[in-house]
Amino acid sequence: MLIIADNLHVLHPTIARAVELLDPAPIMDLVRRCAAAGAQAIDINCGPLKKDPQHHMTFLVETVQAAADLPLMLDTTNAAAMAAGLAAARRRPIINGFSLEPVKLARMLPLAQAHQADIVGYLLHPDSRVPLEEEEMMGLALNLFEVYCKAGMDPARLIIDPVIMPLGWADGARHNRSVLTVVRNLPDLLGTPVRTMAGLSNLASGPMPLARKIALEQAFLPMLAAAGLTFALANVLHAPAMETARLSKLLLDDFVFTG
Amino acid sequence: MLIIADNLHVLHPTIARAVELLDPAPIMDLVRRCAAAGAQAIDINCGPLKKDPQHHMTFLVETVQAAADLPLMLDTTNAAAMAAGLAAARRRPIINGFSLEPVKLARMLPLAQAHQADIVGYLLHPDSRVPLEEEEMMGLALNLFEVYCKAGMDPARLIIDPVIMPLGWADGARHNRSVLTVVRNLPDLLGTPVRTMAGLSNLASGPMPLARKIALEQAFLPMLAAAGLTFALANVLHAPAMETARLSKLLLDDFVFTG
Repeated sequence: MLIIADNLHVLHPTIARAVELLDPAPIMDLVRRCAAAGAQAIDINCGPLKKDPQHHMTFLVETVQAAADLPLMLDTTNAAAMAAGLAAARRRPIINGFSLEPVKLARMLPLAQAHQADIVGYLLHPDSRVPLEEEEMMGLALNLFEVYCKAGMDPARLIIDPVIMPLGWADGARHNRSVLTVVRNLPDLLGTPVRTMAGLSNLASGPMPLARKIALEQAFLPMLAAAGLTFALANVLHAPAMETARLSKLLLDDFVFTG
Repeated sequence: MLIIADNLHVLHPTIARAVELLDPAPIMDLVRRCAAAGAQAIDINCGPLKKDPQHHMTFLVETVQAAADLPLMLDTTNAAAMAAGLAAARRRPIINGFSLEPVKLARMLPLAQAHQADIVGYLLHPDSRVPLEEEEMMGLALNLFEVYCKAGMDPARLIIDPVIMPLGWADGARHNRSVLTVVRNLPDLLGTPVRTMAGLSNLASGPMPLARKIALEQAFLPMLAAAGLTFALANVLHAPAMETARLSKLLLDDFVFTG
């Protein structure tokens, strides 16, 4: 399990202001702290970027690259911004992402195709509804995989995200139990060792003491790791959760234990 | 997943001395702290009890019962002590335990039969070796289950423990990964919803800072819970691990989340 930092989010006031002013310092500082905390990649979440999207995304990619030599994941629904980010990146980034939603299929798959980039596919209904049951998720995964392959894409470049739901939502816990099963069973279902991702910060989103958010992440991360999750997208500045992630990987690896 | 406290161990100097002097106070104090920490049952581990075993076990059972109204698990290889404990207990305790080792089969199974008690069966070879591979564990589970059923015992009273190995041992991590798979697959293998137990304190036994022991327990407990473990035998005074256990159960249950 690799950890991708979700800390760089344009909705955070400090980051929003830095992007507005094209001031690299606060962004570089955050990225360096994420790298020091153990991030193995950085998700650049710049939202829809209504104003000057290409310019802002290029600025973000260049700034993050200047701060840390880590793989990037580009997280925007704006296709022009995504294209600009792909062009600005030194290494091929991961596109985050698409789903069976028609606009995502139309805009994001061709970019992944053109750049031979890895891309995250979310298990959502075409009308954006989140599935609840395991069978429903598995059905969506089959559809998504079929659409993806029919577009001529390489199955080895797909990363499937079954979408963790906030525990505060009705049926959130039940949905998240299904996420564990889906992560475990997707490679068998699709007949290929497909990679998986899960956005851990969804789990305990909403008003809640920080210590409790982190404790919930600590309980769910090892379950995801043992289910075979490839990428956890997480707040890497939650130190105890990162320690749990590190020890989970260690427990699931062959290693010589030195205390 | 229910938590059984493994804190009451006769090898702890305070407990050894209290048993020697037949002084209930230190034992009652420990049991009350375990109950307050969330223990759902108490394991009375009195070792082989070479001197006056029946009397000491009776004293322990009566003292624990006076301190907390919790189910008991009796943990001794001494059959006379086990019989005395079974006689002294108000509620039918769990017998801990037997395995394919001939002496355990000969001494413990008849006690479980006579008292209609639940009993823990360890996945060990007849010569006491710990199995390493999953297939080896599954083979032992089949043998154990067959021997158990042929003795006329009720499958619903069996609890199988696949024996967590210290991480410090060669192949400890590999063995413990197999433990997860075995816990998950035993009900299918045996064709009955057999209950399982795991002794978490084995994981990080040996010299290691306490914070690291607890962090390792925090990483492994959610994996065991998600695999469907029935009973975790653990040090319930490791507060962060108990919080992780509580939240793991919550994540795996249907519940209304209230923050």
